[in-house]
Amino acid sequence: MAIQVAVCGPRDCTSGDESNAREVGRLLAERGAVVICGGHTGVMAAVAAGARSAGGTVVGVLPGEDRRDACRDLSIVIPTGVGEARNGIIVNSGDAVIVIGGSWGTLSELALAMRRGGVPVVQFGGWRILDGDGRPVPGVEYASTPEEALALTGLWPGR
Amino acid sequence: MAIQVAVCGPRDCTSGDESNAREVGRLLAERGAVVICGGHTGVMAAVAAGARSAGGTVVGVLPGEDRRDACRDLSIVIPTGVGEARNGIIVNSGDAVIVIGGSWGTLSELALAMRRGGVPVVQFGGWRILDGDGRPVPGVEYASTPEEALALTGLWPGR
Amino acid sequence: MAIQVAVCGPRDCTSGDESNAREVGRLLAERGAVVICGGHTGVMAAVAAGARSAGGTVVGVLPGEDRRDACRDLSIVIPTGVGEARNGIIVNSGDAVIVIGGSWGTLSELALAMRRGGVPVVQFGGWRILDGDGRPVPGVEYASTPEEALALTGLWPGR
Amino acid sequence: MAIQVAVCGPRDCTSGDESNAREVGRLLAERGAVVICGGHTGVMAAVAAGARSAGGTVVGVLPGEDRRDACRDLSIVIPTGVGEARNGIIVNSGDAVIVIGGSWGTLSELALAMRRGGVPVVQFGGWRILDGDGRPVPGVEYASTPEEALALTGLWPGR
Repeated sequence: MAIQVAVCGPRDCTSGDESNAREVGRLLAERGAVVICGGHTGVMAAVAAGARSAGGTVVGVLPGEDRRDACRDLSIVIPTGVGEARNGIIVNSGDAVIVIGGSWGTLSELALAMRRGGVPVVQFGGWRILDGDGRPVPGVEYASTPEEALALTGLWPGR
Repeated sequence: MAIQVAVCGPRDCTSGDESNAREVGRLLAERGAVVICGGHTGVMAAVAAGARSAGGTVVGVLPGEDRRDACRDLSIVIPTGVGEARNGIIVNSGDAVIVIGGSWGTLSELALAMRRGGVPVVQFGGWRILDGDGRPVPGVEYASTPEEALALTGLWPGR
Repeated sequence: MAIQVAVCGPRDCTSGDESNAREVGRLLAERGAVVICGGHTGVMAAVAAGARSAGGTVVGVLPGEDRRDACRDLSIVIPTGVGEARNGIIVNSGDAVIVIGGSWGTLSELALAMRRGGVPVVQFGGWRILDGDGRPVPGVEYASTPEEALALTGLWPGR
Repeated sequence: MAIQVAVCGPRDCTSGDESNAREVGRLLAERGAVVICGGHTGVMAAVAAGARSAGGTVVGVLPGEDRRDACRDLSIVIPTGVGEARNGIIVNSGDAVIVIGGSWGTLSELALAMRRGGVPVVQFGGWRILDGDGRPVPGVEYASTPEEALALTGLWPGR
């Protein structure tokens, strides 16, 4: 079974996030990883487009019940019908989780990925979380390029 | 995007259900459909094995959070962590739903598929549902062979 | 903590189901049980109305995110936002499950209650489930009056 | 129907968070609000204990299927069986959301509450969220006493 990587990010994202997501998707597909995403616009559509441009497989896990709400470039659509509870399903499905950009929905995915534990969680752009003393809460890896985002998952140690 | 067919059935099934599920999986894969199943034993494992034997793609939508609980022969695993609520996700993901064999969990999937509406629901073996007057509740199609199960979905009208 | 009883039934129900649901709700409230229901129309609204008429507590577990979609007569509203997955939450919340009337959504609740196991499941009117040999699938208790529906839960053995 | 307030916080919390949660629970009960919480240890148990000490009603929305996993002091238990997806159900159920203390699970609840929109979200202790420029992400109200936590919900404007 192929490696699966969950990629999360806002439906309304910056153009920088969008091009980063596209490149992350392309790189994941090149390495044979299946991309799991939320199947909507913004980062979700961009990572799907990037992965498909390299012949990859992309699963879109939708909040609603209707397949027609999905972005293009999905190989498989899972219209869960469970609303925002689909966020947890996405992060549970990755051997690693990459979070690109910031929004409240995206933050819920980052938090659920860390709550899950046991898998690498890589943040690329977006928001920062400080504890009560103003220090970064440990555990998240921070990437500054698409290549680094993949490297920090640790899934391809030989590269 | 490929046609997706949800195939549901008991984790403890009869040997007849098992061989039927295997054959349904094989036929679906031959026609290029993606199989969505529950990713466990019994009918779920059999439909996955049949589809993979013909080079097909199979998605296992698990109740738990752990990918290691999945049956073999899955191409993609979605470990939802939402328990039996995953039953609704499976049936939402099909352009048609095929139900093989009978159990309470399987009946919940049949019922949710009919509740959803708008997609063909085909039953192959298993339990029967009668209304208060003792008449079959309409809407479900009944198949007696794997080929007929596929035909009754109406997804391949030309065959 | 009070006894909790889940009461399920169609949103479009017969007038007989409606009056039965109202009486079941009243009796449950008289015995101090909290009623858990789906919070919409039909059997759900009727059981809530019956329970409130006797000063009882009723929890409505809604599929949607909006409290305004609820029926009257609820003490507490849980707008889950998880769609039909809320059916399993309702049946998980009862020390017993009473099912009044028949519909596909209602059947999914009956099936999930039986799938859960370990709690009494009482059916009052509605559909019947036969196995492959045409015999009733065992495990469900059948009531023909509201009083009998409560008695068959076994929760009030002294009465 | 009573006002409902969701109170979220870590299962492993500081003693300060615990006493704050207890006091928030007590104040909410005094004002007649129903408390919705996660029904486990830490902040969840403390807010329940505080509310019950003042005769309040507390609903525990559990991740698991087993009512016996719940903390004491709950009036009603909803054992959802949907795992961490119950976090979203808790925050959907409040006319306001109060978050006490910091953890990844708690952050997911804060994020989902903000993602939901339209209800006051008050944070009392715990973590801080900064945007990409190092500025606090707007929208969350910050309380430094239990009284202020209630005041910032805006639900009791006359007080």
